[in-house]
Amino acid sequence: MSKLTIKTLAKELGLSIATVSKALKDSHEISSETKKKVLAMAEQLNYVPNPYASSLRKQKSKTIAVILPEVADNFFSLAINGIQAVATTKNYHVLIYLSHESFEIEKNAVNHCLSGRVDGVLISVSSATTTASHIEKLQNENIPFVFFDREFENFKAPKVITNDYACGYEAAKLLIKKGCKQPVFLSTSESLSICSKRSAGFAAALADAGLTNNKHEFVIDCTGTQEMIFEQLQKLLKKNKKIDGIVASVEKLAMQIYLVCLEKNINIPDDLKVIAFSTLETAPILNPSLTTITQPAFEIGKTAAEALFTMIEKKKHTITAESVTVLPSTLIERNSTSG
Amino acid sequence: MSKLTIKTLAKELGLSIATVSKALKDSHEISSETKKKVLAMAEQLNYVPNPYASSLRKQKSKTIAVILPEVADNFFSLAINGIQAVATTKNYHVLIYLSHESFEIEKNAVNHCLSGRVDGVLISVSSATTTASHIEKLQNENIPFVFFDREFENFKAPKVITNDYACGYEAAKLLIKKGCKQPVFLSTSESLSICSKRSAGFAAALADAGLTNNKHEFVIDCTGTQEMIFEQLQKLLKKNKKIDGIVASVEKLAMQIYLVCLEKNINIPDDLKVIAFSTLETAPILNPSLTTITQPAFEIGKTAAEALFTMIEKKKHTITAESVTVLPSTLIERNSTSG
Repeated sequence: MSKLTIKTLAKELGLSIATVSKALKDSHEISSETKKKVLAMAEQLNYVPNPYASSLRKQKSKTIAVILPEVADNFFSLAINGIQAVATTKNYHVLIYLSHESFEIEKNAVNHCLSGRVDGVLISVSSATTTASHIEKLQNENIPFVFFDREFENFKAPKVITNDYACGYEAAKLLIKKGCKQPVFLSTSESLSICSKRSAGFAAALADAGLTNNKHEFVIDCTGTQEMIFEQLQKLLKKNKKIDGIVASVEKLAMQIYLVCLEKNINIPDDLKVIAFSTLETAPILNPSLTTITQPAFEIGKTAAEALFTMIEKKKHTITAESVTVLPSTLIERNSTSG
Repeated sequence: MSKLTIKTLAKELGLSIATVSKALKDSHEISSETKKKVLAMAEQLNYVPNPYASSLRKQKSKTIAVILPEVADNFFSLAINGIQAVATTKNYHVLIYLSHESFEIEKNAVNHCLSGRVDGVLISVSSATTTASHIEKLQNENIPFVFFDREFENFKAPKVITNDYACGYEAAKLLIKKGCKQPVFLSTSESLSICSKRSAGFAAALADAGLTNNKHEFVIDCTGTQEMIFEQLQKLLKKNKKIDGIVASVEKLAMQIYLVCLEKNINIPDDLKVIAFSTLETAPILNPSLTTITQPAFEIGKTAAEALFTMIEKKKHTITAESVTVLPSTLIERNSTSG
């Protein structure tokens, strides 16, 4: 089917191209009657502005990109909902790119965002990302971007994060209060800011309680596919029977801990107490119910999107490259830490 | 920063624009040494081809769109992984649009896919979608598209689905075998093909067992936000204490059933047996473990993407508008239906 141009539309309506164009842009110069007529005809003839042509003309794609590791983690699906809630009010489209925790895929996604394809980028970096060189490309092209949740600690940019260090500290404190002598922290990545901050807080609490003396390794890396994580946890709990508490830095680690304990008949919480950074709605109905540090996922996405649009709309003065918003998480005690 | 053009790149390399262009396209006419040199320089100078210009030239966006209701449901996050697994091998970008079960948002997403912005569309329709007029726009523009999971029964197009009717039948049969006298089917939408097929299978099994005579309503609509679903289920189980079995047509309904039973001290499976269409990895660790009809979510996404690329690559003869692929689901018995 030959593409319908604004010219054809104007011809059909017996109006000038300028009038039709202004009407479609909801210009104040055009009467509401005319606008109604134009929109009705546009709908009837299924007129769609050519995105490339109009982008080249306006240099606005009316699209933002969200680059994040995965959507299987409930945190990210809630954050996306928060982002879309804002984008919808701005009449913007949202492109979602999944890095699947791969730096290469993340790099390609960022490259795909260059050269005017999107007006702004929201990014939560992959666990394999150790350099910000790809992010710098966004800076070089003056494409606004905001980090949410997973960021670069020493990279100056707008960020919306949660109080990871404090939560790591609180989690360890609870395990210690419940009698754990050898709690461990499961990290998904050494490079990931959320993991380093959460584990630092965890380590500090252990130190304050004098539990770092007994030479046990208390921050353990646990990465890969669900199957790989399952095997690593099997080995860990078999090798070190003294581990009596675990803080899972991300949701999927907690799920694998439960599955390993189910298989190995390890009783949660009697043999092993578990806390997870998680927004899982199923936490209360797990067996046993899971104690969580619940991040304000929707709010983090919403706030990050609002910050991005402030930049896109060039209200730069209201946001500085250093502006970091911290939205606190909530520790919710359930049966996985009882007794 | 001024955009770097292929011209600048050629100048820097002391090569012709044609040579550089061919090298970037990995043409056989260019020696691998030259290709290496060009790519190294392109990387060094951060050369990115203008997507709009190149799209206008090639009329290829190297991008496919996935339009689906949500990512909070594990089925869809797994399906996306299947889709991306294929897109990556084709060196295609994947745009994800979430309709949030809204027909208006879905319509806008489809419109955004028109006029050459994407080369193809994978769509799983929203529960509010009752007309295919927006999909017909894709047909009119000859944009290849494939339905996955949620489709239009009487709309002739390539589809990748699961054996919904048979699974609805099997689910009811299991509940009856376990002694249920008044099992009900929870639907999220009257218009949704997956719900109508699953409930039809469910109803057929009840009829075959002679359980449709006792006038109880055995297919119940349950829609809205998690909170709304929670309230509807509270009312339902309060009003009709004879309900002794439930088949949840989608994952989130099962979660709300568990939460209601937790609050109302209704024992699963003694008071109420539960089966859910779900790919939840947490099914075995729920309290009690959840009997599921598990769809091959990753495979459905992968197969749909493969079908779409077959069409994009114009191997049309291998796929007809009527070609429907059915990938069977698996019933996995767990404690929520025991006894």
